[in-house]
Amino acid sequence: VVGLREFELVGLDGDDTLWECQRHFDEVTEVFRQIVAPHVVDPAVDVTEVLDATERRHLPIYGFGVKAFMLSMIEAALDLTDGALPAEDLRRLIEEAKSMMVGEVTLLPGVGNAVDALSRDHRLMLVTKGDLLDQRRKLDSSGLADYFEFVEIVHDKTPAVYRNILDRRELHPSRFVMAGDSLRSDIVPVVAIGATAVHVPHSRVWAHEVVVAEHDVPVLSNLGELSGWLANR
Amino acid sequence: VVGLREFELVGLDGDDTLWECQRHFDEVTEVFRQIVAPHVVDPAVDVTEVLDATERRHLPIYGFGVKAFMLSMIEAALDLTDGALPAEDLRRLIEEAKSMMVGEVTLLPGVGNAVDALSRDHRLMLVTKGDLLDQRRKLDSSGLADYFEFVEIVHDKTPAVYRNILDRRELHPSRFVMAGDSLRSDIVPVVAIGATAVHVPHSRVWAHEVVVAEHDVPVLSNLGELSGWLANR
Repeated sequence: VVGLREFELVGLDGDDTLWECQRHFDEVTEVFRQIVAPHVVDPAVDVTEVLDATERRHLPIYGFGVKAFMLSMIEAALDLTDGALPAEDLRRLIEEAKSMMVGEVTLLPGVGNAVDALSRDHRLMLVTKGDLLDQRRKLDSSGLADYFEFVEIVHDKTPAVYRNILDRRELHPSRFVMAGDSLRSDIVPVVAIGATAVHVPHSRVWAHEVVVAEHDVPVLSNLGELSGWLANR
Repeated sequence: VVGLREFELVGLDGDDTLWECQRHFDEVTEVFRQIVAPHVVDPAVDVTEVLDATERRHLPIYGFGVKAFMLSMIEAALDLTDGALPAEDLRRLIEEAKSMMVGEVTLLPGVGNAVDALSRDHRLMLVTKGDLLDQRRKLDSSGLADYFEFVEIVHDKTPAVYRNILDRRELHPSRFVMAGDSLRSDIVPVVAIGATAVHVPHSRVWAHEVVVAEHDVPVLSNLGELSGWLANR
C-alpha cells in the first residue's frame, strides 16, 4: 500500500557494499609497485603515490572504473621508468589488471541474506559507478540481480546524478534512502539532495573516496542491520 | 494527446547518427599504423587487421568505447612489435587516442535542425553505447541534451537491452521507433523485439558493425527526413 511506508525505494551501492572491490585494486597496485619499483628513474619517488596522482589527473577524462585504472597504470609506469620498463613487465601489468574484469565477485559476509531480507519489504535499486559492462558482469555474477527492480550504473555519484535518478521516477527525495560504504559517493550527495543516507563502512577505502567532513548519518556495522533499522524508524 | 500518435517515443543513436565518431577512430587507427608498422616483427602482417582482431577479442571483457580501444591499441602494439616499440611511440599512441575523449563533437550536417524538428512532435530518447563519461561529454558538448527526455547509455545494444529500456517505461514495442546508422545496433535488435527501426546510413561503418542480412526497413538519406517520414506514415 503506497503511502504507508516512509521509504518507497532503497538504494544500495555495489563496490565494497555488496561485493569486494577495493581489495582487488589494492592487490593490483601492490603488483604494480613490485614490477615498476626496480626500474624507477628517481628512487626517492613513491611509486604508489604517482599512480594515485595519475588516476586523479585522469578522472575528468577517463572517469571511474577498471579500464581507467589500467590506462593510468600504463601511463604511470611509462612516466616513472622514463620508458625503461621492459615490455614483458608492461604486459604482466596489463594481464594483472585484466584479471579484475573476469571471474566471479565475492559477496561481503552476510550480504546475500541482507539483500534477501530487504527485498521482502522494499523495492531495491542498485546505484553503482564504474565501467558499464564490468558493473553489469559483477551484478550478474553476484546472484543478486533479481532482487533489484532498478539498476543505475552512473559515471559519477553527484547530487545532480542522484536527483536525476529520482526525478525520472517522479520520486521525492524524502521517499528515498541510500546505503553504502563511501561517504563521498553514497552519503554526502544523497544528504545534499534531501534524501536519507545510511553509512555501512568498509575496512578498505580508496584514497579518492575519503572525505573529511563529519556527517550526522546513521552508521551500521554491516548491511544485515539495514532491514531492522528501516523497520524501527 | 496520448493515443493519437502511433509512436510514443523516438529513439536516436548518437555516434555517426547525431555526431561524427568513426572518422576519429579511423584517423587514430591510421596513426597507429604509421607508428607501429616500422617496428613490426613480421612485415607480412596487416597491422590494422591485428588491431581489429585484438578489439574483437577484448569485446566480451572491455565492452565498447574509447578506453577499450586504447587498451586494445596498446596490447596490439606490444604484440606486433614483440615489445620493441619505443616507449615514446607508445606514449604518442596513448595521447592520440586520449585526444578523442576531449573537445567538442562535430554534429553531422543538418542534425541540429533535424532533432529540433523531431522534438516538436515527439518525445526523444538517446540510446548510445560506449563509455559512460565519454558519451555524456559528447551529448553535453553537442548542444542537443535538452531535446532528450531520456538518455540511455548502454553496454551493448542487444534485443534484451532494448526490451529492458521499454519495459522500465511500460512502453509496448509497437509504440517505439529507433533511428540510427548501424544495422547491427540500431536496426536488427529493434526489429527483433517487434519495434520499428529506421536506417540512416553513414558513409563510414566500423567493421564490427557490419551485418550481412538484408532487412526490410525504411532507409533515409539523412536524419532530417525522419520527421517527415513519421508524419506521413
